[in-house]
Amino acid sequence: MRIGVLGTGMVGRAIAARAAELGHDVTVGTRDVAATRGGDWSDWAAAHPTVTLATHAGAVTDAELVVNATSGDGSLPALGAAGEENLAGKVLLDIANPLDFSNGFPPTLSVLNDDSLGERIQREFPRTRVVKALNTLTADLMTHPRQLADGAHTVFVSGDDADAKKQVTELLTSFGHTDVIDLGDIGTARGTEMLLPLWLRLYGRLGNPIFNIKVVR
Amino acid sequence: MRIGVLGTGMVGRAIAARAAELGHDVTVGTRDVAATRGGDWSDWAAAHPTVTLATHAGAVTDAELVVNATSGDGSLPALGAAGEENLAGKVLLDIANPLDFSNGFPPTLSVLNDDSLGERIQREFPRTRVVKALNTLTADLMTHPRQLADGAHTVFVSGDDADAKKQVTELLTSFGHTDVIDLGDIGTARGTEMLLPLWLRLYGRLGNPIFNIKVVR
Repeated sequence: MRIGVLGTGMVGRAIAARAAELGHDVTVGTRDVAATRGGDWSDWAAAHPTVTLATHAGAVTDAELVVNATSGDGSLPALGAAGEENLAGKVLLDIANPLDFSNGFPPTLSVLNDDSLGERIQREFPRTRVVKALNTLTADLMTHPRQLADGAHTVFVSGDDADAKKQVTELLTSFGHTDVIDLGDIGTARGTEMLLPLWLRLYGRLGNPIFNIKVVR
Repeated sequence: MRIGVLGTGMVGRAIAARAAELGHDVTVGTRDVAATRGGDWSDWAAAHPTVTLATHAGAVTDAELVVNATSGDGSLPALGAAGEENLAGKVLLDIANPLDFSNGFPPTLSVLNDDSLGERIQREFPRTRVVKALNTLTADLMTHPRQLADGAHTVFVSGDDADAKKQVTELLTSFGHTDVIDLGDIGTARGTEMLLPLWLRLYGRLGNPIFNIKVVR
């Protein structure tokens, strides 16, 4: 599958590397290709030679599935740069959390309670099939869940399009996830985004991001 | 131990019944004793003959540990009726969530992000040792956790006073909890209160409140 990954940070690299490892044709999108190449990208790129770097628009034009791995406040600008027309009809796996670090650590949320970043993206890009997922765990566990308790922990999907959720669930399963709960429509992203405050405090307490919640039922 | 439980709803009754079953001396506090007796209290009271009913102030005066099992919007009024002086120095196990049902179901939160109900209570009652706990699962699992996966799931304590958290943790352990994570100060109650939106959507999806999260690490 042709996958476009928006974002060159820890999450974008983890998703791109894992998808490429699984045989997908991966292009990573960035705001400024030259600036990204001028940073520490070259070392990473050398280790992942099949992954292509492009603009946001270049990364999504031919993609069958797009991943939003940008920061919360960078998501709408990045998707805007990718282009509404380019994103129309496509499945968008949205991993971003609307974290606000302006008052230090732990961050608060800039969108919450009666809205979510997932819903905002769906509203701004009504022709795109947004699925919120993987925003509840650290990058290395998103892509390699079996390293923890042999994968006996839970991830969630939220979205309005059943087929899009099915495609994302298949991708998560290919990563090694064994327990994917479909919470319902994109409004249920409020629930997973608002898990972040607990996640951040658990991280502070456990001192290690390799943990996740399991819904015991 | 003498335990005062504020609130006669599902949570208050569950805690009172379990504490009495374990041999504690339990008084339940209510705003209006006659009104509570005039409702469906008498059937419950007949099944729990050792539990006493009193005003909020009457329930806490001689208590060694106080439980806030009122609704989120009823918590500060109930604690005010109990009396700042009566609560001074005491451990307060705060189970309430600041749920706002004014726009229907699922409710939003009326306090969140840069504050929490637990912190509000601690600020209003600075001489009371507030511990937020048990607000992340259904009443029947708060008190009988072993019915689900033999207790292999997680609860949390948040509070500024280490000894108070120890006392609450001992009570939770006596209920059957096996995994109690101390998140840190009362500010960490933001994390557990903000779990409620996810809990509510999981409840909607699973159709049964007998579930809980386990922190897999």
